[in-house]
Amino acid sequence: MKLFLNLGIWLALPASLAFAGDDPITLESNKAAIELVQSHADYLWTLIAACLVFFMQAGFALVEAGFTRAKNSINIMMKNLMDFSIGSIVFFAVGFGLMFGVSKGGFIGTTGFFLSDYTPGGDPWVLAFWMFQAVFCATAATIVSGAMAERTKFIGYIAYSIGLSAIIYPIFGGWAWGSLFNGSGWLEGLGFIDFAGSTVVHSVGGWAALAGAIVLGPRIGKYTKEGKIRPIPGHNIPLAALGVFILWLGWFGFNPGSTTAANKDIAMIFVNTNLAAAAGSILAMITSWVKFGKPEISMSLNGALAGLVAITSPCATVSPMSSIIIGAIAGVIVVFSVLFFEKIRVDDPVGAVSVHGVCGAWGTLAAGIFNMGGTSASIIGVQLIGIAACFAWTFPLAFILFKLIDKTIGLRVSKEEEMTGLDQTEHGGNAYPDFEVSSYIQG
Amino acid sequence: MKLFLNLGIWLALPASLAFAGDDPITLESNKAAIELVQSHADYLWTLIAACLVFFMQAGFALVEAGFTRAKNSINIMMKNLMDFSIGSIVFFAVGFGLMFGVSKGGFIGTTGFFLSDYTPGGDPWVLAFWMFQAVFCATAATIVSGAMAERTKFIGYIAYSIGLSAIIYPIFGGWAWGSLFNGSGWLEGLGFIDFAGSTVVHSVGGWAALAGAIVLGPRIGKYTKEGKIRPIPGHNIPLAALGVFILWLGWFGFNPGSTTAANKDIAMIFVNTNLAAAAGSILAMITSWVKFGKPEISMSLNGALAGLVAITSPCATVSPMSSIIIGAIAGVIVVFSVLFFEKIRVDDPVGAVSVHGVCGAWGTLAAGIFNMGGTSASIIGVQLIGIAACFAWTFPLAFILFKLIDKTIGLRVSKEEEMTGLDQTEHGGNAYPDFEVSSYIQG
Amino acid sequence: MKLFLNLGIWLALPASLAFAGDDPITLESNKAAIELVQSHADYLWTLIAACLVFFMQAGFALVEAGFTRAKNSINIMMKNLMDFSIGSIVFFAVGFGLMFGVSKGGFIGTTGFFLSDYTPGGDPWVLAFWMFQAVFCATAATIVSGAMAERTKFIGYIAYSIGLSAIIYPIFGGWAWGSLFNGSGWLEGLGFIDFAGSTVVHSVGGWAALAGAIVLGPRIGKYTKEGKIRPIPGHNIPLAALGVFILWLGWFGFNPGSTTAANKDIAMIFVNTNLAAAAGSILAMITSWVKFGKPEISMSLNGALAGLVAITSPCATVSPMSSIIIGAIAGVIVVFSVLFFEKIRVDDPVGAVSVHGVCGAWGTLAAGIFNMGGTSASIIGVQLIGIAACFAWTFPLAFILFKLIDKTIGLRVSKEEEMTGLDQTEHGGNAYPDFEVSSYIQG
Repeated sequence: MKLFLNLGIWLALPASLAFAGDDPITLESNKAAIELVQSHADYLWTLIAACLVFFMQAGFALVEAGFTRAKNSINIMMKNLMDFSIGSIVFFAVGFGLMFGVSKGGFIGTTGFFLSDYTPGGDPWVLAFWMFQAVFCATAATIVSGAMAERTKFIGYIAYSIGLSAIIYPIFGGWAWGSLFNGSGWLEGLGFIDFAGSTVVHSVGGWAALAGAIVLGPRIGKYTKEGKIRPIPGHNIPLAALGVFILWLGWFGFNPGSTTAANKDIAMIFVNTNLAAAAGSILAMITSWVKFGKPEISMSLNGALAGLVAITSPCATVSPMSSIIIGAIAGVIVVFSVLFFEKIRVDDPVGAVSVHGVCGAWGTLAAGIFNMGGTSASIIGVQLIGIAACFAWTFPLAFILFKLIDKTIGLRVSKEEEMTGLDQTEHGGNAYPDFEVSSYIQG
Repeated sequence: MKLFLNLGIWLALPASLAFAGDDPITLESNKAAIELVQSHADYLWTLIAACLVFFMQAGFALVEAGFTRAKNSINIMMKNLMDFSIGSIVFFAVGFGLMFGVSKGGFIGTTGFFLSDYTPGGDPWVLAFWMFQAVFCATAATIVSGAMAERTKFIGYIAYSIGLSAIIYPIFGGWAWGSLFNGSGWLEGLGFIDFAGSTVVHSVGGWAALAGAIVLGPRIGKYTKEGKIRPIPGHNIPLAALGVFILWLGWFGFNPGSTTAANKDIAMIFVNTNLAAAAGSILAMITSWVKFGKPEISMSLNGALAGLVAITSPCATVSPMSSIIIGAIAGVIVVFSVLFFEKIRVDDPVGAVSVHGVCGAWGTLAAGIFNMGGTSASIIGVQLIGIAACFAWTFPLAFILFKLIDKTIGLRVSKEEEMTGLDQTEHGGNAYPDFEVSSYIQG
Repeated sequence: MKLFLNLGIWLALPASLAFAGDDPITLESNKAAIELVQSHADYLWTLIAACLVFFMQAGFALVEAGFTRAKNSINIMMKNLMDFSIGSIVFFAVGFGLMFGVSKGGFIGTTGFFLSDYTPGGDPWVLAFWMFQAVFCATAATIVSGAMAERTKFIGYIAYSIGLSAIIYPIFGGWAWGSLFNGSGWLEGLGFIDFAGSTVVHSVGGWAALAGAIVLGPRIGKYTKEGKIRPIPGHNIPLAALGVFILWLGWFGFNPGSTTAANKDIAMIFVNTNLAAAAGSILAMITSWVKFGKPEISMSLNGALAGLVAITSPCATVSPMSSIIIGAIAGVIVVFSVLFFEKIRVDDPVGAVSVHGVCGAWGTLAAGIFNMGGTSASIIGVQLIGIAACFAWTFPLAFILFKLIDKTIGLRVSKEEEMTGLDQTEHGGNAYPDFEVSSYIQG
């Protein structure tokens, strides 16, 4: 680090711009310098957006911890920390190459493992791009954590996390976003619109979450012996709400950052993202008010997330007014979807399947319906193909992965461990030792 | 999203800069490209600053929740979520046009509703600017929430929130910031200095908060039958402190972002903002130490906020040394102001009236006194006119609005509901079901 | 603030670029404009990075509060608030001049106090640079807070904080980073590599923390009468985990921001920072799993921090693969270091000495070993000199400072105060009055 006190000039500047001191100034050298400054802005934006998306990890962790019981809070924090940590290393070693490497067979990338496309002194853009993609991969992985909360063996969860970050997410992602290279991006080739990943990130996470919740089965006490639904309220709603605010903030990196370039397009993406989230939370609140007689907070918070997930695909190609409609519909859908899955005994403590899977599909469809450039049966058809392909790829593969884990290292903790709480049995700790916590004895 | 693995060039660059491949390079085309790159930097800064200001919503929510009782935490989170969600939609539909639209009558804007000034393919700057203004509007709205905490009917609060975001804030804001268009900005025309909104945002919020607290009356138990003040301590101080750190962070978007341009001016605004906050927290701590015998945390935290509010108006036009003085004085003022309002039976659980109303007025006055370009009776006179106009516009209007709500849908919950807590009665929930919470039975 | 509704042009642009309307466009004026736009990007990045580093204050506060008992939470928040507030003013008045001012005697800077090198209308770069350096100084100061938690007198802590921010940190920092000016940067002159401050910030904080913990002695109850170690678990693990996520985020400002320029180098620094943190948390988890039979959360969280501290020095000069190795080794070191200090009766409630002192030293050494430009005994030798100089300067000076405080205003609270908790005795408050908190009576 250097300072230039008393010198009155900004010495680093010529260096960043690589103007050689005595070279003549030409139109071409000026043009090259302009391009360089623009590329610096592109780096800044892509990496700052990556910061915002990274912070979503904290948001997901808080939402999940807040919406579940105190006795499992350490476990939830550990899962989210490891999701990101292990995901980062795995995506560095394997995932990124499968997703964006040059594809030999037209199906998966086969170069770029361990960031081997980068050589010191070479163009570092691949590093900036990797950073942005790595936080996306981690988002897909961490979505699943919520649906499997309060009953999953830690080691089993880690095994899943590696599978999703190394294989399931990157290969599908390459289909939708990797088209430049020898045809691995077949969905992109069809014209599939998924600007920032309603399908690529959120539905992949959501359908994997569905598989996980099904393989695990419901938590003890979630359904009475007579088969009635029993609510298991979250232990810290302010934390969950903070998590949603953090996620909303992070989405301003997630969607506008997907330009990976500093240009004027980001303005509309910001506005659309914000309006859809706002509409989603309002409509989910109203829906819960009508249905339950009171404006419920967990539905309202999930409504904001539903709007955000839904606008993720169409954010760059629909108008602000359409964004409000898309978000509002997502806010209604999420309430009914949560109730539906609860009814068919898929126990998803945070509503991840509904928020990310179902609303991700809705948003992807909406990108076709509300497309500013006009819509058609063919455009909508391609969107449906993308939605279907995501489910067809992710759900069975994740289901097999979870079954495999279940049969080998084990996916679910014992009944005693679940009753006691995972904090104590899996991690030897207690999240709140100074407080009287009643969930420790709760069923 | 695209990557350029193995290509070694940054393809997006020419596209962002719109250099046509075969066009000759000229001085003019280079100049246009330079201006374009600068505008990209302006977009980035304005939108990143909007992110920081958005995050202040979480800060306000945590400060309010932390400084009040556990039995009302869900209600507080809901109010803050809905403030922002409803505020976003209302400011999109109505407020922005009133504030920044072209003014026909010289008093309020009458174009730009529903962002209708933007047409796809047109200049998207209005979208970036809207985003930044929308988070400002939401800040004004959310200030009021704290002063009305623990006893306000949820539906009544929503009605107020719509009124402030649609009418009260935008019209005053247009007077101070909308001068470009046919004279609606009469205060700006007088030379009124309010760079980032000590008056426009904070005093508007603060005086509306005062009206709300007066119309509501104090919480049950705040004053004994003998009329003595009874402290009602906040239930989660670490959350409140986190909220203040988040607000301080957000203010680095609030003040420097008000350039809405990436230029060198932001450096001094950053430094001034930080020094005023630091001085405010130190002086409030010392004042509480002298007055109560111990360095109190709620005063110290409010002191930081007081310094931030006070420097919001003068941050671009005073020196760093003056900023320390301005912040320090705010830190002293806030302590005495909180005690004053408590004494005259205005029950403001978080000190919002003192922090935002009173210190907003002080900061606006200070912008005249400490103006780097020199001061005069006339400059100070204009500042006083602005301060008075804000009170004269906001307080009666907000008072009438609250009275109107009170007489129609109702503003205050019943005594039983207040005793039980709003989480249960208004939202059917419990913020901390796993913990033994005593405020559930507290008066 | 201005908007340009209906005008379709971005008026601020020529102003930011200072193109005079009628001046002829020349190659030179274009080049000057390009340099100006690049400098705007440099300002943006340096100040946005400063925001991220500022937010680390919240992260440190949460980690410290989460890892200690509920009865001391207010005190911890106050210390962290005042660390930053007082540190800001002191670094403005004294520290910055000592660190980066022109050095007359070749040892310390002697100009630039009270930011006197800046004159209105002059180059504001010094203000942007000050902002970034001020948040660095505050980081060094706040590290110590954790090691001294739960037993330090508030006034004594403030006295230390002033000493570190005014003298200890800036003078050492000048040696490592101030070489431009008349030789005060003797370490930099030797070729010492400490890009973002593993030694300058973290080891300075860590060794001061060691001195503080030694002078204070262990908390009551930390060791039984028979001399056995007794764990004192933290009271809010989700808060601590949130703190680590915030710190991780902040480090994306800390390390890449140390370019203080918007260039392409930041990409690799981002990637290295992230991979080292990930590897650190994974290896610390595995180490705790092997040693204690369960994957422990406090070790895993500290492992992430250990990786971050370790990569801080080498982040700009090692490869991503080396970063994984450096972080992984830090993750192992931190577990054994924590156990070592606990064993020799240095009671460090959050592991600050191990994370910042020991892993800071490791990272600085690693910068020599893994240097991309090649290593040698001489390079490693210089790194060892820097590490030793840091300890030799910081530890004795901090030790003397703490002893001095102890003998005068007092450093440790009384036994009764410690048992009761500092929140009540030092600040007259209660962090969680609505909850049943058992640590209030805990030894």
